[in-house]
Amino acid sequence: MKDEIITCPGFKFSGCASGLKKNREMDLGIIFSEKEANTAGVFTRNRIQAACVILDRERIKAGRGRAIIVNSGNANCCTGPRGMSDAKAMTRFAASGLEIPEELVFNASTGVIGEPLPIEKIEKAVPGLIQSLSGRGLPDFAEAIMTTDTFPKISTGKGEIDGKTFTVTGAAKGSGMIRPDMATMLCFVCTDIEIKHSALKASLSKAVDGSFNRITVDGDTSTNDMAIIMANGISGVRAENRESEKVFQKVLERVLEDLARTIVKDGEGATKLVEVNVLGAASDRDARRIADTVAGSNLVKTALFGEDANWGRIIAAAGRSGVEIDSEKIDIFFNDVWMVKNGVGCGHDAEAEKILKMPEFEIRIDLNKGDGKSSVLTCDFSVDYVKINADYRT
Amino acid sequence: MKDEIITCPGFKFSGCASGLKKNREMDLGIIFSEKEANTAGVFTRNRIQAACVILDRERIKAGRGRAIIVNSGNANCCTGPRGMSDAKAMTRFAASGLEIPEELVFNASTGVIGEPLPIEKIEKAVPGLIQSLSGRGLPDFAEAIMTTDTFPKISTGKGEIDGKTFTVTGAAKGSGMIRPDMATMLCFVCTDIEIKHSALKASLSKAVDGSFNRITVDGDTSTNDMAIIMANGISGVRAENRESEKVFQKVLERVLEDLARTIVKDGEGATKLVEVNVLGAASDRDARRIADTVAGSNLVKTALFGEDANWGRIIAAAGRSGVEIDSEKIDIFFNDVWMVKNGVGCGHDAEAEKILKMPEFEIRIDLNKGDGKSSVLTCDFSVDYVKINADYRT
Repeated sequence: MKDEIITCPGFKFSGCASGLKKNREMDLGIIFSEKEANTAGVFTRNRIQAACVILDRERIKAGRGRAIIVNSGNANCCTGPRGMSDAKAMTRFAASGLEIPEELVFNASTGVIGEPLPIEKIEKAVPGLIQSLSGRGLPDFAEAIMTTDTFPKISTGKGEIDGKTFTVTGAAKGSGMIRPDMATMLCFVCTDIEIKHSALKASLSKAVDGSFNRITVDGDTSTNDMAIIMANGISGVRAENRESEKVFQKVLERVLEDLARTIVKDGEGATKLVEVNVLGAASDRDARRIADTVAGSNLVKTALFGEDANWGRIIAAAGRSGVEIDSEKIDIFFNDVWMVKNGVGCGHDAEAEKILKMPEFEIRIDLNKGDGKSSVLTCDFSVDYVKINADYRT
Repeated sequence: MKDEIITCPGFKFSGCASGLKKNREMDLGIIFSEKEANTAGVFTRNRIQAACVILDRERIKAGRGRAIIVNSGNANCCTGPRGMSDAKAMTRFAASGLEIPEELVFNASTGVIGEPLPIEKIEKAVPGLIQSLSGRGLPDFAEAIMTTDTFPKISTGKGEIDGKTFTVTGAAKGSGMIRPDMATMLCFVCTDIEIKHSALKASLSKAVDGSFNRITVDGDTSTNDMAIIMANGISGVRAENRESEKVFQKVLERVLEDLARTIVKDGEGATKLVEVNVLGAASDRDARRIADTVAGSNLVKTALFGEDANWGRIIAAAGRSGVEIDSEKIDIFFNDVWMVKNGVGCGHDAEAEKILKMPEFEIRIDLNKGDGKSSVLTCDFSVDYVKINADYRT
């Protein structure tokens, strides 16, 4: 399995170094579908939106696509009218090299906000990028879209409908500026299934909600976030009724959850992956608010980094979430170690500290009130997070 | 001025080491009013509340007080029924030593959540604490209530009504778990003015709103926060009509703003004090939401620590605040350096970096939309913040 190259039938990928990043690191990538594909996307809810987000939102209305061209090292955001003309130029270069209509090409950028894109470097690099397109090029693409990520993020899944196999393959980037508020990163998904545009769109929204909208690294949301999916139908497998759509949905969710998990795992400076599960709330919505507040608390996250079983910060964060809670009913567990019973500490700090040394564990908060539950993935907050973000542009 | 001991007529203060903290640091303090005082308070909005908060909320309904006994090193929160009996015991020890009714004594605790209070240590220390009460004891009191604070926080102001002088003197503690959501710290204010309880209460709420509710260090709110004011009337100066109440209000606001400012300045690991001013918003409420989001953004705060003029993070934070903004209208300034004009960078990074090296400066965001404005004080987010909070209990 390890040596198997992840790919998706009917798609080609490549990545190269155009010179946007220092040290000749890869910074330009492209995905190409051999056939016109039904295409859907979800985009950042940030009011400040990069040129690529504005452009793609418009183009995706037609629901069709052939290619996505992505650069890292520069967000092309807050770059004025020039920003939009640069974003369009990127898609034009790709369209001309691929001999396809410009309107079927999408664009994404990620990196520093507010600096003009050195578009001439991209223009020069596109022909080589297209020449090296290959079914085996996904690892290069995934590397080319990285910013502070320390490893490329790829996931693939297969499903079966009427005895025939289809594939869903995704690549994502994201490490900082991550919080559960719409696709807080870049994610590109390819599938060879045949599915109606409306169903594809609904599937993607649902899968994003259960994956990228349930992770937090630092509470910041980017201006460039998006998730785009292209379904080119090349497998001949059709998701054409509720049952087969469900099969597809399941595979898509598994791939996105896997990518979301790797994003938190690669959270800037992170040393631990922690699942915050809240149960026994009056509603799922209440549970979600508490999970978000605990998972996003700097004090909780620094304690996790310090491997300190400081459950007081967890209960204090739950208390400020705005949800009505009974402190005398709360139970808190670290994996299976009972830390707090009826709002009072159990004195199991020694056992807890063994768990806190693990790379992955669960914080479970039971409000013992109702049936509402929710889950959010977070990471610890380390000295390196600050170092990475204090020196980001230098 | 430097050698002048800050105090307030008719009040005595003291602080001592009871053994709650390591290294014989001071950890127990008391304020005593020579005369029964009108007393008002504001308390944390966190749903998880320490025993002292629950006790004081109840007692303050009568609007009268004589003393406040405060310990640091232990929050006496999430400590079950024992916590409440310990809180009451603290006030009983003080009342008995001072020969006053227990109901006129208030209690505050600050420190680690979830550990039982070593009440016997406090019991042993109270007689000595009372013995050393003095009009010159405020510096000791202010030191005794510190946790991660690096310096004691005291401020005093004087006002004049009908040619006679009154004094307002406050002490505060707070350095982490600070965000603008009710008195996110401890603050005790003494005044020798004579003022009705209802007017005192209204004055305090208003002054807290303009000071402690406008600061942020790390976005976390504590379970123990409170601000209590005692007005004992000893000066003979009366605030008995709207005009004289205004004079008092102004002095009170100045004292609390001063204390709030020192709290941010002493923010855990902070190296810079930054005022985030938002203007030109559609409403004050909108301006406040943007100021809060920018002032609370980890990415903005780490960039401030790195002295990096990364205005992209400021505009991105404004964009995710939930407020409707026009990116093409936004202007951003660092002091008088124009960083962003109509949503696009001005290229003044070199000048900006000089400002970022200063210990105090302003970030001004003009939305050029309406007349709404707001201001929030914040600090940078340093490697030391993480270190302090990773190792807090060890």
